[in-house]
Amino acid sequence: MAPENARRSRPLERMDDLVALCARRGFVFPSSEIYGGINGFWDYGPLGVELKNNLKAAWWQAVVRERDDVEGIDSSIICHPRTWEASGHVEHFSDPMVDCRACKKRFRADQLADAGPCPARQGSSEHDFTEVRRFNLMLQTRIGASEDAAAIAYLRAETCQPIFNDFRRVREAARQPIPFGIAQIGKAFRNEINPRNFTFRSREFEQAELEFFCRQAERDEWFEHWLGERLRFHRELGLDAEVLRTRAHAKDELAHYCKRAVDIEFQFPFGWQEIEGIHDRGDWDLSRHSQYSGKDLGITDPDTKEHYKPIVIETSVWIDRTCLALLCDAWAEEELAPGDSRVVMRFPAALAPVTVAVLPLSKKLAEPALALERELQRRFNAFYDDAGNIGRRYRRQDEAGTPYCVTIDFETGGDGKVTVRERDSMDQERIAISAVAAYVAERLGRPA
Amino acid sequence: MAPENARRSRPLERMDDLVALCARRGFVFPSSEIYGGINGFWDYGPLGVELKNNLKAAWWQAVVRERDDVEGIDSSIICHPRTWEASGHVEHFSDPMVDCRACKKRFRADQLADAGPCPARQGSSEHDFTEVRRFNLMLQTRIGASEDAAAIAYLRAETCQPIFNDFRRVREAARQPIPFGIAQIGKAFRNEINPRNFTFRSREFEQAELEFFCRQAERDEWFEHWLGERLRFHRELGLDAEVLRTRAHAKDELAHYCKRAVDIEFQFPFGWQEIEGIHDRGDWDLSRHSQYSGKDLGITDPDTKEHYKPIVIETSVWIDRTCLALLCDAWAEEELAPGDSRVVMRFPAALAPVTVAVLPLSKKLAEPALALERELQRRFNAFYDDAGNIGRRYRRQDEAGTPYCVTIDFETGGDGKVTVRERDSMDQERIAISAVAAYVAERLGRPA
Repeated sequence: MAPENARRSRPLERMDDLVALCARRGFVFPSSEIYGGINGFWDYGPLGVELKNNLKAAWWQAVVRERDDVEGIDSSIICHPRTWEASGHVEHFSDPMVDCRACKKRFRADQLADAGPCPARQGSSEHDFTEVRRFNLMLQTRIGASEDAAAIAYLRAETCQPIFNDFRRVREAARQPIPFGIAQIGKAFRNEINPRNFTFRSREFEQAELEFFCRQAERDEWFEHWLGERLRFHRELGLDAEVLRTRAHAKDELAHYCKRAVDIEFQFPFGWQEIEGIHDRGDWDLSRHSQYSGKDLGITDPDTKEHYKPIVIETSVWIDRTCLALLCDAWAEEELAPGDSRVVMRFPAALAPVTVAVLPLSKKLAEPALALERELQRRFNAFYDDAGNIGRRYRRQDEAGTPYCVTIDFETGGDGKVTVRERDSMDQERIAISAVAAYVAERLGRPA
Repeated sequence: MAPENARRSRPLERMDDLVALCARRGFVFPSSEIYGGINGFWDYGPLGVELKNNLKAAWWQAVVRERDDVEGIDSSIICHPRTWEASGHVEHFSDPMVDCRACKKRFRADQLADAGPCPARQGSSEHDFTEVRRFNLMLQTRIGASEDAAAIAYLRAETCQPIFNDFRRVREAARQPIPFGIAQIGKAFRNEINPRNFTFRSREFEQAELEFFCRQAERDEWFEHWLGERLRFHRELGLDAEVLRTRAHAKDELAHYCKRAVDIEFQFPFGWQEIEGIHDRGDWDLSRHSQYSGKDLGITDPDTKEHYKPIVIETSVWIDRTCLALLCDAWAEEELAPGDSRVVMRFPAALAPVTVAVLPLSKKLAEPALALERELQRRFNAFYDDAGNIGRRYRRQDEAGTPYCVTIDFETGGDGKVTVRERDSMDQERIAISAVAAYVAERLGRPA
């Protein structure tokens, strides 16, 4: 077998190639496909949900479980509507919109160049636009049996606001001194006018957010700390320096409450785009929620007795965008021989949807193969496939991004050995069947 | 130390005791508490989110990862509104309601006995009720920029319907023959008129559902299989026969599409109540979605060429109710000595929010204690506490339900040993500091 670097490899250039693979193999596909889909909503299939869960688990492990100074929560998606008045979303979270009087379509005023010719005014390439109006991006619903306006509630537009609601309760329950953080992973919703770029800009999405509360004098230090930690996290996901960069927001880009913001961007086929943001939110959130709730969310310094509102350093991951970055980064089309190529998803082993596939060379070998799969399933995401020739089965696992394939053949019964094939190098190694679990665990950096 | 069974132990009798503990220790508390809460919505705090995540991970492991015949998905909460016409929710998912003309309050017609006296008709204990009207329980929103009725969408009222939407895509992507299942965990929403019993009946809740597709001739066999598997699951969570029972629905209780239903019930302080349902839904769902989408969701038998709609056996866990059952079941107040008692949450070790606490006897021992905690955090949910006397720290861990406390004392530096204290027996054992990780792993049934 030729060494890996001798093979010609083509990275992802056209999103359509990835979109097609994701649907065919069950990573991600449109929600409600049988009804023609619903714009801006996506479902994760059997491979996609494992990839996303592995990403979320890695974040939770790094940000919550391995930190003494961060507490996790899981708040409701619908919270008290005053939350969104305090946060400023009811008043300000809107896009500038115009309607075309002829074709009745609505457009973002800042994206009119994308509007295209007006279908209702065939003699003209121009739309007949109304004046600009603001269109709130929060999704609204009504709670309770009453039909009056008091029952209006919103689907959360970001996961961080409920963290501020819970700040005092969590700090007291967890007995945390300042500095400390509160983190959560969950769904949020925005009524994007123009969802686009596959899952990149969607109306329902998942966030993993940390709000870290510190003293004003320490804010820059903590900003640098978290920026460094978060960059390290993405690098450890296998996203290397060529496809990852930071971009500091210019003063005139900053939200009014934001003192400093740095985006972590990934180079998608459609350009450099944000997958995470690190923000210095100052004391805006705790001050506003104090004001709107009438509850004191300040802290009294145990030594100086000074009463103050902590500063918030926020790290905010777009989970779906990061999944998309992992999918884009993993994709490679390799020429194995003239006229013979494969698509291989080179996920890091710890994030791959399937960690190890068990492939008996013949259905007659099902018994020892299934016994091995059962053993591996207790610790890894293991997969069993006895259908088709072994070459085709390897190709299917390459497309799924499975790092290790274990083949059981007719000699296994005699010598107790199996063949382990590594996805990227396609190197094969013969090891004892009893050593497979430890072999895989070692490569994931877990105990044998 | 007296053996455990010699201590007087009182189980949970009043929900208020649990509600207070859950708020104070940060298991579960009202959403948006600082704004006075929002009826039917709850937040999980630092301990609660770990308990819930452990429960969800146990379900995913048992139902998805350890089965070759089940595929996981994660679908969007908002899906195409035709989904809910096909499912019958738009037409039928409603409660019978009456309004009181005097006090303007709304009541469920089947719960009028709970209505209480009318505050607006002081001379009378009677309300002045309107006729019964149907009130749909789905939460509605609007998607997209247009203001017309076409934009109405619903928050999913159950996680199973998107599974039917995705049935064909998942079956093809995963190359699954019948029988096989599709499972997902996620949020669902119902506009309950009268949320009650802590988190038991709430408006936003989490479900873990499996839809298992089989041949009509095998339906009873698969129903029995899944009922057995699901009961075994709850037993392995530590819920034993005294607090767990099954209840088969009588014919007149069944939904019209349901051929058979068995509830798994837990004995809460407020009575026996469902925490999971196993349902034979027949071919209702695939038939309706075929009809409404115009897509053929049938299967052609590869041998007989017969074309048929598979039968669905559903297992549907109420995640929040099962968490509540675990909290109720774990709670015990023990008399340790006259005038000395403790509240201890006896979670099974594998589900406990914190697996192991590291407690240096003095802050001077922080260095080896933190080093041990770092090692343990990579594999378990470990917690560090050096504040207060050791007895108080043990009590705090008892309330959190931490199965193992590791104490580092001034002899640890010399003999390399630490004291492990087991939560339920309060027995203490001295073991090598280097053996702690393996000690805990063994008790969780994991590799050393």
